[in-house]
Amino acid sequence: MLRLGFDIGGTNIAAGLVDDQYRIVRQTARPFPKGQDAGAVADLLLALAQTLCSEHGVALRDLNSAGIAIPGSIDTQGETVLDAYNLGFHNVPFRGMAAGRLGIPVFLGNDANAAALAEQRAGALKGCKTAVLLTIGTGVGGGIIIDGELFNGGRNCGVELGHIPLYTGGRPCSCGNLGCIESYCSATRLRVDGEPLGFADAKAVIDAAKAGNRDAMRLFDAFVGDLGSALISIIHLLDPERIAIGGGVCHAGEFLLAPLRQDVQKKCFFATIPQIVRAGLGNDAGIVGAASLNE
Amino acid sequence: MLRLGFDIGGTNIAAGLVDDQYRIVRQTARPFPKGQDAGAVADLLLALAQTLCSEHGVALRDLNSAGIAIPGSIDTQGETVLDAYNLGFHNVPFRGMAAGRLGIPVFLGNDANAAALAEQRAGALKGCKTAVLLTIGTGVGGGIIIDGELFNGGRNCGVELGHIPLYTGGRPCSCGNLGCIESYCSATRLRVDGEPLGFADAKAVIDAAKAGNRDAMRLFDAFVGDLGSALISIIHLLDPERIAIGGGVCHAGEFLLAPLRQDVQKKCFFATIPQIVRAGLGNDAGIVGAASLNE
Repeated sequence: MLRLGFDIGGTNIAAGLVDDQYRIVRQTARPFPKGQDAGAVADLLLALAQTLCSEHGVALRDLNSAGIAIPGSIDTQGETVLDAYNLGFHNVPFRGMAAGRLGIPVFLGNDANAAALAEQRAGALKGCKTAVLLTIGTGVGGGIIIDGELFNGGRNCGVELGHIPLYTGGRPCSCGNLGCIESYCSATRLRVDGEPLGFADAKAVIDAAKAGNRDAMRLFDAFVGDLGSALISIIHLLDPERIAIGGGVCHAGEFLLAPLRQDVQKKCFFATIPQIVRAGLGNDAGIVGAASLNE
Repeated sequence: MLRLGFDIGGTNIAAGLVDDQYRIVRQTARPFPKGQDAGAVADLLLALAQTLCSEHGVALRDLNSAGIAIPGSIDTQGETVLDAYNLGFHNVPFRGMAAGRLGIPVFLGNDANAAALAEQRAGALKGCKTAVLLTIGTGVGGGIIIDGELFNGGRNCGVELGHIPLYTGGRPCSCGNLGCIESYCSATRLRVDGEPLGFADAKAVIDAAKAGNRDAMRLFDAFVGDLGSALISIIHLLDPERIAIGGGVCHAGEFLLAPLRQDVQKKCFFATIPQIVRAGLGNDAGIVGAASLNE
């Protein structure tokens, strides 16, 4: 049985056919139709679905379902995109709009949640009952798995791991509060801190730190310490079996993860710490997770 | 069916018979036998059980089970008290010791967890599927309910709500880290902050704030703000339906809860906030929760 997964971002829409083993058997992508309305976005989803089905030799009506990962908040019924700033969607009843066009069951989900679900089904969190994916990019987001299933907050409004206070009263965060995890642990923050020293982006900071540059090492060490404290928040509250780190900075691999584990061990109340690993699915997580939203 | 509940503290051991409706039908207490070994504590539990049964006209062997709430950490099998500093227990296989004496099934649990379970079964969290009890006393502790049941951390090692970073790098905490929730939001902290100004304890600060004393109001406002940020950590990660505040400071009632809700509303990512209420069971929570540990 094949399922459709759509990963809608402010730049691109990725679409794929996902099989029972959570493998993407065919995929495609198009630029997000900026400046057009949600109906045009739904039309584009249908066009992408038809392309995938045609290329793969299957009928759209024979697909099991379609899942759509959205970079924003979804209402508790899973019908309406409440706010997705990068898409310009506000109170858009997008599930129905997509279902009307695709003619198969459609499920909406937050993109960070979808990625966590994908990692649990087929990636770095596979087999875990309690696990967290923390994605570090422009912002910091993540998803929580409890009892092997996606946990969308006790009120089904989502979770906001990037907006847990880390330094209460500290740096301004995009959400309006001061001192959130996101304002210390995002790749953006590492870039901004690196800029006055001549580093172009987070990757440049990390590369220079690897090469032994003192300024870069200092920035990177502070970043690791802050990320360690962020993980301590998650661990002292949930103590998941495993935490996967996703997003661009996870490409630093053990250069990031080894000192991060040491920092967490130093601060952790428990004798042992959860496993801390690199996310496994990369950009595929969105499509795979979206397709898995019907489970 | 009656169950036994024991609430063991460093000062007193409280014991009670609890019925199917989570009511304590008979209770008693004795001083904790300081300086004696764990065997003496287990002997005392048997003596308390015999007293309760005798007074209530029931046979100990006819009781359903006994639960023991411990102020410390329990191993994942529920057999051994790993560390309970106030009791002087370290790696004590206390479940077996108690079961050998009582002759009925015995269950061990952390006291903060037991209190949360009691509140969910019969108190301020009754009927909630996802809820948190935060107890503010000498330290800050708490328990988490997920899907209507106690959540003891993904690795079954417990949760440590008091040791979530609030001001990373801030005030020293008893756990060795800097800036934990406990080092800002405990009653102890309010007392210490009040002492140089002439306030004897947390209650004195709160009473003076109620009476309009400027110094006390300033301390209390800061305390409410920090507690609000602590709740934001819990809300942005778990977003429970309801949070109950327990411990001595909850006697402040709406004088604490009303500004606390306002502070949380101001900082919360979600449009609405979880219910924030006063814990309902007071000191009974330990016995009721201990008796409920077998569910």
